[in-house]
Amino acid sequence: MFLKSFQEKFKDKIDQKIQKIMDDGINEAYFEELKEILEYLKSFVLRPGKRIRPLLVILGYYGYSDKNLEEDVILTVAAGIEIMHAFLLIHDDIMDRALERRGAPAMHILLQKRFENLVNNDRIGEDLAIVLGDIAMFYVIKSLASLDIPDKNIFMKRFSDCYIKTAYGQILDSLYTLRNNISEKDVGIFEQIAKYKTAYYTFFYPLVIGLILSGKYTEEEEKKLEKAIIPAGIAFQIRDDIISSFDENSGKSSDTDFLEGKFTSLIELAIKKVDRSFFEILSKPQKSYEDVTLLKEKIIYSGAIQKAKEVISYLCGVSLENLKYINMKHEYREILEELVSAIQR
Amino acid sequence: MFLKSFQEKFKDKIDQKIQKIMDDGINEAYFEELKEILEYLKSFVLRPGKRIRPLLVILGYYGYSDKNLEEDVILTVAAGIEIMHAFLLIHDDIMDRALERRGAPAMHILLQKRFENLVNNDRIGEDLAIVLGDIAMFYVIKSLASLDIPDKNIFMKRFSDCYIKTAYGQILDSLYTLRNNISEKDVGIFEQIAKYKTAYYTFFYPLVIGLILSGKYTEEEEKKLEKAIIPAGIAFQIRDDIISSFDENSGKSSDTDFLEGKFTSLIELAIKKVDRSFFEILSKPQKSYEDVTLLKEKIIYSGAIQKAKEVISYLCGVSLENLKYINMKHEYREILEELVSAIQR
Repeated sequence: MFLKSFQEKFKDKIDQKIQKIMDDGINEAYFEELKEILEYLKSFVLRPGKRIRPLLVILGYYGYSDKNLEEDVILTVAAGIEIMHAFLLIHDDIMDRALERRGAPAMHILLQKRFENLVNNDRIGEDLAIVLGDIAMFYVIKSLASLDIPDKNIFMKRFSDCYIKTAYGQILDSLYTLRNNISEKDVGIFEQIAKYKTAYYTFFYPLVIGLILSGKYTEEEEKKLEKAIIPAGIAFQIRDDIISSFDENSGKSSDTDFLEGKFTSLIELAIKKVDRSFFEILSKPQKSYEDVTLLKEKIIYSGAIQKAKEVISYLCGVSLENLKYINMKHEYREILEELVSAIQR
Repeated sequence: MFLKSFQEKFKDKIDQKIQKIMDDGINEAYFEELKEILEYLKSFVLRPGKRIRPLLVILGYYGYSDKNLEEDVILTVAAGIEIMHAFLLIHDDIMDRALERRGAPAMHILLQKRFENLVNNDRIGEDLAIVLGDIAMFYVIKSLASLDIPDKNIFMKRFSDCYIKTAYGQILDSLYTLRNNISEKDVGIFEQIAKYKTAYYTFFYPLVIGLILSGKYTEEEEKKLEKAIIPAGIAFQIRDDIISSFDENSGKSSDTDFLEGKFTSLIELAIKKVDRSFFEILSKPQKSYEDVTLLKEKIIYSGAIQKAKEVISYLCGVSLENLKYINMKHEYREILEELVSAIQR
């Protein structure tokens, strides 16, 4: 099977299950404005996306299992993982002062517009979005509660580990955004941010959760999966750093990473090639168009983009090598290999 | 047994378990600034408090059980409920722009002071505090994962329900804070806010969770507990509204409810006795000393405080009556009666 057909086979089913979990919650809401807000949350979770995390849960399950668990259970977990992604995005967008998400207003922006005439609170959107993120998460915990899952204790532990690690990455990201006095001593931080903030919850834990659902969980196999997929997860973040700021054709290109003063892979790879003034501009909370242009020119001139592509290539190579040693069925491992190759391009 | 001696018997044990759960998390943190931030979180959770919620978990358990579960399991759940309280306080304080909590700086204020020289982000404290609240919560989910609990599915469902309801109350609270056009049609909203934002997670669900741990859970007993304790929980919030703004001797008295423009019990009880200008001032985002003095005078003149005391009395009466019908052992029910009487005073 190929990635594309695997995706097509399950994408609608995942979205139907997401809808079900959200509707179960909304049905218990007890006043009109709340119902309206929860409908925004549901629409937010269902905005078009690749559904990569739930697909990896399903892939992990079928890759290891002898198909003894109901599809409904797998889909509920997979949908839950996508809703958890929405929970993280909502809180992240508040922290990043992001305006858009998936081609539409960020949740806090949307809520601000809806309620700014009702209350004299110029941050009502953020206030509601913090709570709404929390609600998304508790809907997931509740939907998991009634599932009959093998090794449920390990399942809940790894589920928690996933979001604890992601939060640690988020803290590191915050501490390195608009940071003063960045210097060569900070080389190595990007890998930590990408691993904790992205690679674990996007690639590794969805597969581990699929493995647990299959009933074949062992610590040894978990370690093999970590070696096989974390490098690709970091490469994925580097690819995203390049596309976000420098790929004019992607439709994703914008200057937000520079405007927000993020410590991306490109910043780290340019660290030895740029002067102090680069970091002084990067750490300015408000940047002019000229500031951003200058930063981007210096990144291009530093050779960081080319170096980043080499790092992607190396990391994907490591992943492809280590994928040989996981005990997943051949046809499913092939899909993972295809996924890693797509990151490598 | 009396409330006081029950509290003294368990308070230290609860705090020791909180410390253990937090330390287990901190030990896995992987860089210095993160460890430091997590230590702040631990200190925050352990700030002196009445520990009413964990005590009600323990009371619920012993009140129903034949002592077949290890004390360690009960204490882990009880400590978890207190950590969840800290999670809610951290997010709440961001939303309320609160400066203090339990006699010390609010978490976001503390983090702002610590990191404002490191990064050029005048909201770094809030950004970190959002994530730190999330971390507290996942530490709890993880610590619950390994526990052997009777009816664990029901346990996790009720645990989720607890915080979903609280979040709904928080949304309602936000939508009625600094709200325009408050009028007589809004009578009844206070009860909804108090029930959802306070009564459920402070009184009802801790007891239900204790009941589930005892292995004697039935839906019927849960309903009896709801009737018996929710009225007292609402009364508790009304008492808090009075003390917060009008009890000069409590040491808790401040003008924050008025400054923040909260829709408290006193506002609702004065609704028919105050003119439009009252609500215009209440909904102003920035209020002068004179504004607040005027609001407080109008509340006093409206007779709302006396009426609030009567409502407290009535609600506690309902709770005391309905407590007769719960199937809790006599000596533990007496502690609950004492608690309700203390709210009634």
